[in-house]
Amino acid sequence: MAELAKLGHIAFETPDLEESLWFFRDLMGMKVVERDDDTAYLCGLRDYEHHTMSLTEGERGAVDHIGLRAKNPESVEEFAERFEELGMDVTWTDGSHEAGIGESIQFEFPAGHRFEIYYEMDKPDIDGKQRSNIPMRRYSPEYANRVYPQRIDHAHVQDGSPESTSELFEEEFGMGLNEVFKSADGTTWGWWHATTPLPHDLAVHRLEEDTREFHHIAYHLDHLQDLWDAADILSENNVEIDGGPGKHAITNANYLYVKDPASGIRLELFAGPGYLNFEPDWETVVWEESIGSESDHQWFGTQYEMDGIPYTE
Amino acid sequence: MAELAKLGHIAFETPDLEESLWFFRDLMGMKVVERDDDTAYLCGLRDYEHHTMSLTEGERGAVDHIGLRAKNPESVEEFAERFEELGMDVTWTDGSHEAGIGESIQFEFPAGHRFEIYYEMDKPDIDGKQRSNIPMRRYSPEYANRVYPQRIDHAHVQDGSPESTSELFEEEFGMGLNEVFKSADGTTWGWWHATTPLPHDLAVHRLEEDTREFHHIAYHLDHLQDLWDAADILSENNVEIDGGPGKHAITNANYLYVKDPASGIRLELFAGPGYLNFEPDWETVVWEESIGSESDHQWFGTQYEMDGIPYTE
Amino acid sequence: MAELAKLGHIAFETPDLEESLWFFRDLMGMKVVERDDDTAYLCGLRDYEHHTMSLTEGERGAVDHIGLRAKNPESVEEFAERFEELGMDVTWTDGSHEAGIGESIQFEFPAGHRFEIYYEMDKPDIDGKQRSNIPMRRYSPEYANRVYPQRIDHAHVQDGSPESTSELFEEEFGMGLNEVFKSADGTTWGWWHATTPLPHDLAVHRLEEDTREFHHIAYHLDHLQDLWDAADILSENNVEIDGGPGKHAITNANYLYVKDPASGIRLELFAGPGYLNFEPDWETVVWEESIGSESDHQWFGTQYEMDGIPYTE
Amino acid sequence: MAELAKLGHIAFETPDLEESLWFFRDLMGMKVVERDDDTAYLCGLRDYEHHTMSLTEGERGAVDHIGLRAKNPESVEEFAERFEELGMDVTWTDGSHEAGIGESIQFEFPAGHRFEIYYEMDKPDIDGKQRSNIPMRRYSPEYANRVYPQRIDHAHVQDGSPESTSELFEEEFGMGLNEVFKSADGTTWGWWHATTPLPHDLAVHRLEEDTREFHHIAYHLDHLQDLWDAADILSENNVEIDGGPGKHAITNANYLYVKDPASGIRLELFAGPGYLNFEPDWETVVWEESIGSESDHQWFGTQYEMDGIPYTE
Repeated sequence: MAELAKLGHIAFETPDLEESLWFFRDLMGMKVVERDDDTAYLCGLRDYEHHTMSLTEGERGAVDHIGLRAKNPESVEEFAERFEELGMDVTWTDGSHEAGIGESIQFEFPAGHRFEIYYEMDKPDIDGKQRSNIPMRRYSPEYANRVYPQRIDHAHVQDGSPESTSELFEEEFGMGLNEVFKSADGTTWGWWHATTPLPHDLAVHRLEEDTREFHHIAYHLDHLQDLWDAADILSENNVEIDGGPGKHAITNANYLYVKDPASGIRLELFAGPGYLNFEPDWETVVWEESIGSESDHQWFGTQYEMDGIPYTE
Repeated sequence: MAELAKLGHIAFETPDLEESLWFFRDLMGMKVVERDDDTAYLCGLRDYEHHTMSLTEGERGAVDHIGLRAKNPESVEEFAERFEELGMDVTWTDGSHEAGIGESIQFEFPAGHRFEIYYEMDKPDIDGKQRSNIPMRRYSPEYANRVYPQRIDHAHVQDGSPESTSELFEEEFGMGLNEVFKSADGTTWGWWHATTPLPHDLAVHRLEEDTREFHHIAYHLDHLQDLWDAADILSENNVEIDGGPGKHAITNANYLYVKDPASGIRLELFAGPGYLNFEPDWETVVWEESIGSESDHQWFGTQYEMDGIPYTE
Repeated sequence: MAELAKLGHIAFETPDLEESLWFFRDLMGMKVVERDDDTAYLCGLRDYEHHTMSLTEGERGAVDHIGLRAKNPESVEEFAERFEELGMDVTWTDGSHEAGIGESIQFEFPAGHRFEIYYEMDKPDIDGKQRSNIPMRRYSPEYANRVYPQRIDHAHVQDGSPESTSELFEEEFGMGLNEVFKSADGTTWGWWHATTPLPHDLAVHRLEEDTREFHHIAYHLDHLQDLWDAADILSENNVEIDGGPGKHAITNANYLYVKDPASGIRLELFAGPGYLNFEPDWETVVWEESIGSESDHQWFGTQYEMDGIPYTE
Repeated sequence: MAELAKLGHIAFETPDLEESLWFFRDLMGMKVVERDDDTAYLCGLRDYEHHTMSLTEGERGAVDHIGLRAKNPESVEEFAERFEELGMDVTWTDGSHEAGIGESIQFEFPAGHRFEIYYEMDKPDIDGKQRSNIPMRRYSPEYANRVYPQRIDHAHVQDGSPESTSELFEEEFGMGLNEVFKSADGTTWGWWHATTPLPHDLAVHRLEEDTREFHHIAYHLDHLQDLWDAADILSENNVEIDGGPGKHAITNANYLYVKDPASGIRLELFAGPGYLNFEPDWETVVWEESIGSESDHQWFGTQYEMDGIPYTE
């Protein structure tokens, strides 16, 4: 049976690649692993795949696709069959569209979100000096700044028919549903799904309009202090913070949101602990607004702007 | 020449001593060192004096006086002479009004703030089991909760003639002026003074009305994480947070404000690093609102409510 | 196909239950969830099962069995068949031997390690006041001490034929092999296995003699600082530290080892980050002693005593 | 009366300035504020004086002098008179020997330690881009590495007649004596002195031989985690750690010792909290070896090598 291993990478476009690299690399401490004329491939300092983000120079800030890694090559084929049966156009690639990757399938959800599923991905190839001597690390820590993004954590999308998106995450991607949020009128507003024990690998939120957007990509930091240093660095560089630092009630993790000034891509820095869900009988946590008002834990509520970026054309 | 050593203690009144102890001791982790019929004496886990806060059952939440420790017994006498010369009523006490303390003087500033200056204070006497084996500690750490307030840090008052209060801090108490804040119209709005290398021991803010209030008492925590745990504990217990967790631009320290629900006494948890000022030629830092807007460091701005508690009658 | 979800619990015996509770509960901050005449059931503050450790009063410090939770009830049956086919005695229990648990199977490896596999386990039932308002938490944080063990992390055993034990972990339990350690003469000395993305759920080390022992149980802490506070608390209470605080090269996590003075059960406090392995094509990291000597990372080497506790008779 | 404000700077020699800068700047994260042909001037990221360390290319690793800042210009003159009266040769400089400094006096203790006392010192002048927008900071945090040394903390010397050195610290420098350590035979072995509220500004240890050496210079870090990252960085670069990370019983602070491979200058990274001593009636803490053995706090004992570097010729 087809299975996903993890969220792999997100492919973005930016209208100013140099300014986006200033933000993601120079301020937020990510690493550029490969670069060609119009695309830079980036990763966190402990990501084990070739890259977990790509930035291609384009007309505007936009997301192209969300890459998911399958547990084995057979799963890729099974996913292709499954999504074709559901009536989606499934395109096979030979991996030439992206550095590091092998064969993959690409397809679009009815709500408009675009995914890539693949198994083959190069291991990272890191420049001599920056390479750590410790096998489980990639980069030696003297090449990390105070933010030190460790690894890709999750992606968050939004659309006008989120029930169908959530259902595809659960039924077709085989993800669990760890948490949902209901607004005061009883409408479910957000769904947090995971194929790993993380609080979520993919989440979806409701939009009023019938459109679809990409809300944010998150990287994991080890320490609360790193969030604080990130906020300091952003302030020193006149980059407006979009939310936080704070603590989420949902996911129980610490966060800071900030947009790349060039592209509008929203980055979430997501710092432990959160929780790890190893339970095979986890009961979905249902958050109601009343929980918030009764227990006054809104200091760690979900406080961020709701605008996202579009998909590439 | 008369010199102050440090901020010593604050004497408060509360309309419900038991509920105030639930807040300060059970939630915020302070220690009760002595208790008589109507007064509890509290301290941080590494305070070296008998107590740094007293709570006396009274009609309403109020502050009675701010205690300052002199560097030697002679300084107490010199301060008495000095404040009498300035026309203030200086009252000598034999220390019987408060546990642990010896002879002291009490007097009131023209703006209405009430101070006590003393030299003699008992060393803490801690119950056998809770007493640390490490000489520089007081309490053994297994009796600390997650908040772990270490020591009194500073006090903050407000009145309608803050220039005169600031001048007395500087000229008579001999304190440095580390920082001031000017609002957009050029009016100085706050003054941060210190006799120690801390960012401040006493601060004063401007009130529009011609009155005087006590704004907050601060305890120092070692770690940013402790602020976060404090916020969690407050949320779990439905105690509204008054400001933070965040980072101050002024003082450069991390903070959380919360009021004791019974008395309205505002507690600031103040977590390192801040800065230590050992420089004999420190130039007062002048904050103007424009600094904020230019450098976008308002994420660590001063965000708290301005109401304070009155002095006891 | 039979699958394990996680390490569930370890059942121990202690010659002095009260002293063991002083150690695990009063010093190390674990929680007692249920207690009968001769057994106490304990957990970390964010464990989602009824208990993750049991302590039964007995003749000496010993381990009875290691409990593993299956992904579903069918897996328990399949594991029963599988281990019977391998010639082991598999005993079904109705769960009456242990609070909270349902039907289970018990069996012993040829090398002598004893396991229990189960699916049914009660959810924790926490006393009113200590219960958190936040659904993903169990205990409200004001009932945590400075150590704050969050959840069971892993167990470590040792025997004279570790190759066969490692092979059963891999082939029958379906665990990955994240890391191995080879001593200078080329002998493999340790194997770190996981069914979850943790660095390990079960590890095995080589003993010279043909016997088998339980080396340690580990609980996960969120912060390095918690390890430090644990060391302080142990020092204040004259409990000798067995190793650390330090940083492991293998697993990349921070650690402190200490034995319960009553039973000799060794507890590892294991603090993040370590790493999470989501990669389906992880290549086992092979540590050779030469890596250590070349890169001088021995400050975070594996420094602990090798003695373990026996199995119950 | 002559008073000292603080420890100011230490002037060192190194046989390989480039390699020393690789160590202090590239690995340990210090900043070079000025550089001429044979001398580099360094500081921590929040030092408020022009520099707190100088490294001059010379024949071997050695210390030239320990600089102490006076509270005012008059104090420099008074110290000059005082030490001349004690029979020491006091030399006035015009500050041309060192960048940033003004007039100063230099003299040598009978035990051989060499000091400089000065008042005038330039404020730091930091390159445009690295300069923080926050007035109390110097460097913007994106130019800090994971170690982030904040400010000079203390210096530690050793000689064969430490009683006389300690007495000069106390009687002539006007420093308090916060702690002493007695070995098992009752001999006092170490003295920790301070003119500020820090646990110590200057300490002296006993050497068996009748010589004098410089043991270490310490820089203060804000976080325990920074010590850990420093250890990682040292390990990655094959620089042997000289002691720690651990926790001192004396001073109550966290530490790591490491020597610059080129010069043998020992650097201590000293991380909070430690304690601040604001008490005018502090009673010197007397550590006896028996305290250690009774309370088992040796995990945070004083574990380091005793060799030091000589004074320049």
